[in-house]
Amino acid sequence: MQCSVFIATSLDGYIARRDGSIDWLEIVATPGEDYGFAAFYATVDVLVMGRTTYETALGFSEWPYAGKRVVVMTHRPGESRHGEEYVSGTPGELVRRLAAEGAKRVYVDGGTVIRQFLAEDLLDDLTISMIPIVLGDGLPLFGRGTGEHRLALAGVQHWPTGLVQLRYEKSRR
Amino acid sequence: MQCSVFIATSLDGYIARRDGSIDWLEIVATPGEDYGFAAFYATVDVLVMGRTTYETALGFSEWPYAGKRVVVMTHRPGESRHGEEYVSGTPGELVRRLAAEGAKRVYVDGGTVIRQFLAEDLLDDLTISMIPIVLGDGLPLFGRGTGEHRLALAGVQHWPTGLVQLRYEKSRR
Repeated sequence: MQCSVFIATSLDGYIARRDGSIDWLEIVATPGEDYGFAAFYATVDVLVMGRTTYETALGFSEWPYAGKRVVVMTHRPGESRHGEEYVSGTPGELVRRLAAEGAKRVYVDGGTVIRQFLAEDLLDDLTISMIPIVLGDGLPLFGRGTGEHRLALAGVQHWPTGLVQLRYEKSRR
Repeated sequence: MQCSVFIATSLDGYIARRDGSIDWLEIVATPGEDYGFAAFYATVDVLVMGRTTYETALGFSEWPYAGKRVVVMTHRPGESRHGEEYVSGTPGELVRRLAAEGAKRVYVDGGTVIRQFLAEDLLDDLTISMIPIVLGDGLPLFGRGTGEHRLALAGVQHWPTGLVQLRYEKSRR
């Protein structure tokens, strides 16, 4: 089983403004261009996310993860409306359970959960789309507590909008 | 006159460990490969740096900026041993003075000074070499107080070591 990240950040490493807004992603919005997201999403059978990402999704007019197994890492379980599961254990316990249950590729989303998975060295690959903007403040992708991790560059792509997509895999060195 | 940044950061945006060490840059060290630094440095006639970068340079067995004009932004002037100048004004004042004195390209170095120049919108281009490592902690390149800045992607290069070099220019949009 593989645990993967697919996320956009500003050049200064923020995934959202402090209020959670991602309006600044519009600077790379191009009709018909999803920067590889649909292709990535099609390979994923389970999504693991934190409370913040989950509540953002609940706010959409339509549940955005229809057809995928969704696990929410939270200490405050809610009322599952789309089959989503709530878990409160460690990322390691969750990964072992998902693997045992036959999951193939887990899409790990949200800053807090990504950092927790990284800290436990559970991420196999990260695709980071660098947006050509410095925000100056916001919610960071990384931060203290992840520990040190060597990565192997597995690919670089860039687009006329200025988006650069970096793909890293866990370093075997 | 042009103000330029040429710097290496970890994937999580640190330019050094908390104690200032840059030992982790060794993971991309390759004999004969300087990732474009000498070519960049040859185009520069003035270096502007903060106290920390300056003191690091003073600690080298040889003065590393021989043949270049060096300006140290500090409120604690020292004893100039290599012709370096100490200034305590704003980046804007310094840039106007350097331009009036005929400077062509200024190499702005050190996290604090880079952030000050960015905050005053004085940077014309930034070359950022992303090292394939997450450090988990350290001295950041960016940080609160820079304000928001759109940038234009001007180039992307990558090497077998996993170093990705992103070149941005001030966005004219």
